[in-house]
Amino acid sequence: MTPAQTRMLDALSSRLDAKAIVTDAADIAPWLVDWRDRYHGRTPALLAPASTADVVAIVQAASEFGVPLVPQGGNTSMVGGATPPSDGTALLLSMRRMARIRSLDADAGLAVAEAGVILANLDAAAQGQGARFPLTLGARGTATIGGLVSTNAGGTQVLRFGTMRGLVAGVEAVFADGSVHDGLSALKKDNRGYDLDQLLIGSEGTLAIITAATLRLVPGIAARGVAWVGVDSPASALRLLRRLQAATETIESFELLPAESLAAAIAHVPATRAPLTGEHPWHVLIEATAATIDGEAPAALLERLLGGALADGLAADAVIAASEAQGEAFWRIRDSLSASERALGPATQHDISVPVDAMPRFMIEASAACEARFPGTRASGFGHLGDGNVHFHVRAAPGTDPARWYGEDAPVVTRFVDDLVVAAGGSISAEHGIGQMKRAELKRLSSPARMMALRRIKAAFDPLGILNPGKLVALAPDAPAP
Amino acid sequence: MTPAQTRMLDALSSRLDAKAIVTDAADIAPWLVDWRDRYHGRTPALLAPASTADVVAIVQAASEFGVPLVPQGGNTSMVGGATPPSDGTALLLSMRRMARIRSLDADAGLAVAEAGVILANLDAAAQGQGARFPLTLGARGTATIGGLVSTNAGGTQVLRFGTMRGLVAGVEAVFADGSVHDGLSALKKDNRGYDLDQLLIGSEGTLAIITAATLRLVPGIAARGVAWVGVDSPASALRLLRRLQAATETIESFELLPAESLAAAIAHVPATRAPLTGEHPWHVLIEATAATIDGEAPAALLERLLGGALADGLAADAVIAASEAQGEAFWRIRDSLSASERALGPATQHDISVPVDAMPRFMIEASAACEARFPGTRASGFGHLGDGNVHFHVRAAPGTDPARWYGEDAPVVTRFVDDLVVAAGGSISAEHGIGQMKRAELKRLSSPARMMALRRIKAAFDPLGILNPGKLVALAPDAPAP
Repeated sequence: MTPAQTRMLDALSSRLDAKAIVTDAADIAPWLVDWRDRYHGRTPALLAPASTADVVAIVQAASEFGVPLVPQGGNTSMVGGATPPSDGTALLLSMRRMARIRSLDADAGLAVAEAGVILANLDAAAQGQGARFPLTLGARGTATIGGLVSTNAGGTQVLRFGTMRGLVAGVEAVFADGSVHDGLSALKKDNRGYDLDQLLIGSEGTLAIITAATLRLVPGIAARGVAWVGVDSPASALRLLRRLQAATETIESFELLPAESLAAAIAHVPATRAPLTGEHPWHVLIEATAATIDGEAPAALLERLLGGALADGLAADAVIAASEAQGEAFWRIRDSLSASERALGPATQHDISVPVDAMPRFMIEASAACEARFPGTRASGFGHLGDGNVHFHVRAAPGTDPARWYGEDAPVVTRFVDDLVVAAGGSISAEHGIGQMKRAELKRLSSPARMMALRRIKAAFDPLGILNPGKLVALAPDAPAP
Repeated sequence: MTPAQTRMLDALSSRLDAKAIVTDAADIAPWLVDWRDRYHGRTPALLAPASTADVVAIVQAASEFGVPLVPQGGNTSMVGGATPPSDGTALLLSMRRMARIRSLDADAGLAVAEAGVILANLDAAAQGQGARFPLTLGARGTATIGGLVSTNAGGTQVLRFGTMRGLVAGVEAVFADGSVHDGLSALKKDNRGYDLDQLLIGSEGTLAIITAATLRLVPGIAARGVAWVGVDSPASALRLLRRLQAATETIESFELLPAESLAAAIAHVPATRAPLTGEHPWHVLIEATAATIDGEAPAALLERLLGGALADGLAADAVIAASEAQGEAFWRIRDSLSASERALGPATQHDISVPVDAMPRFMIEASAACEARFPGTRASGFGHLGDGNVHFHVRAAPGTDPARWYGEDAPVVTRFVDDLVVAAGGSISAEHGIGQMKRAELKRLSSPARMMALRRIKAAFDPLGILNPGKLVALAPDAPAP
């Protein structure tokens, strides 16, 4: 522990309760490794505030003693965004104790949740009142509201209701000087200058510590329809999506995957069967929902619309899940894609986006370009076609030594893929953020105007560099990317 | 003309075309007075760039010679946001020549429009391809995209598709150092750090000059239903709205007005009749639309839903417009409310918002509080109940001298109303922005944390103070508000 850290903890010990300062190494250890086991940090203490006032005291002390803080929720970052630096200079700021849903009003469609509320718990509470929180993702049982807001999380249900940015009505946060930004009032229109809430959403804990958020709820699901469709290409899939969206606003998911991803899932997940009997080069999982049982049921709607699409040659085959269980089985295939692809051997994974219309061509051309540039590799993407966001994977040639792949090849492959993404007008981080992992690429591929703007915002909000150091953007213009 | 301005124009004269530098006082004069005729500015020159490269040259010169720029689109600001300072130190930067729609793709639902494109022209171009741009407001034939983005404009159709913030997919802008932020690529998911587009939306030209935007289009209207409903209170109106929204997503407008506003409109607008025969204390104008002619027609949907609401006592009476012409007549009443209220005599107008659920109570209690505090006045609100945004007016007691009212009473009334708004967790500027008019109140009523954050952002982006001086927030913390 550095002398500054010791003085800081001394000063805080009289202001926080006994559970708020954790120094037992065994208790801290689980929170020092990231979700993907790529980054390993060190810290002498984990701070666990129970209230916004506690966070104010902690941030004031951090500022006074010059000790950086690394905020952490469920520790499910895919880019090392919540792992402290390995030199032990920063303290962990765990928000998990702030797990209160301060209010939930289904009629108003709003909930105020503290940063440590787990996503699944918020949704369950909303469902208890006939509403729901529509954003969902694999880590829903672990990820927290604070982390989801800080990273502008996405997921598989973004098509209709958007990412966290579209679902946050307001933010409460503690600035680096300990002052509190109270933006929780849920105003649908508010033009009092720069939108601080929007600036904090997706800022990865580098501008302020988010302590709570007001979140939009939507009506609960009364009926659901799930369909599996075989198509000949990503371009056909996109035409199908446009057709469906022109006819209905109820499409919540439209997930595209190639035949080889389906094959991998079937091989990897016990008791999984292909939803369609024939062979198709590409597959689409579609979900439509309805908030009431009045009107056409979503399954009937999908059957009607997909019938028309089949007749017009937009789809090759389709099946509507005949039961909730069959719908769940379709979703299990989708949800196992990442794990089943990992079982195929070493690969690089790229969370990328391009304009929706450009995605079909990108998927075909980028795969071909990767496989040509790195002989023996297999490249393919799957995911959220309607969001212009796929998870693009490049699998090492069979027999490649994993250590060599990850040590030498993967960075080269990553830069190659990122260059293709930028050339297509896309983003090298669609939903995972920058964290530690993508800082060098962000710096390499962003315009000087953009990097300057990011750095100036960082310096304006965190001049001492105490908020999540080493993530997203360096405080000083000339600091080398890690 | 100051020596610096002379040197700046000299430097620019070789870089811009002949139309880009206007120094004839008669040509400049129309642009020196704001829409409401409250602010009168002065400038020796109006600059009219034809391209983003022109804007870069102008901003670089402004930075080099230390000459401030006041960006202006259609000059329809309600808060003096586009009027130059009266001391003549700034130059006007008119964006009206940049009026090209760079692209429009109805299938992708996207258009790229330059800052000077007039709102009505964009919508007409979209309608030419079977789509539309859903935001609309009274000044639609004059207001420009650059101004609408810069002020995060709202209007009467926000309920379904949101304000400009929800309709902007990306922004192109020139920073104070002349570097260009190219955010036009329409990515639905992009987590590469702080969202610069979101920060620039609503920044009122004080952080950068917006030169173009990528905008979301929605499907054109195939059928429309317009209804006029009598209700007993704002609370009943809100219950009615919730009922409608639970049953359908097609409600685009839900405008509330008191009986006296209707009476004023009928008195003011020739050949206007009350839509309902009976007397009702409150009225609601509702519009629902459909993008296809499949399914239930919006008028039939409204008739069915309002029939249920009448049966359940949520509404007292209702009529569905039997024709487009009748629907237009209903809208004419709504659109004439501001003008017809102005005809009743001197008043203060407040563009305010509170949380939607708090609005019914606010409308009743704030009116009563104003009338009690300022005897003889009449206070009432009308407008966008579903957005929690009404235009709240306090009319002077009969016989009040207008000069005295505007000179002495109005500022006191404004502070009183603003205090009520803040006490209700609301915003003193729902859709008009801060501009010059609301700067003092913004400063008076914002937390120190918020003001500090606004100032730091301003200083980070415009350290020399050359972008729209005197608007929104002062560059230096200690500069007095005007």
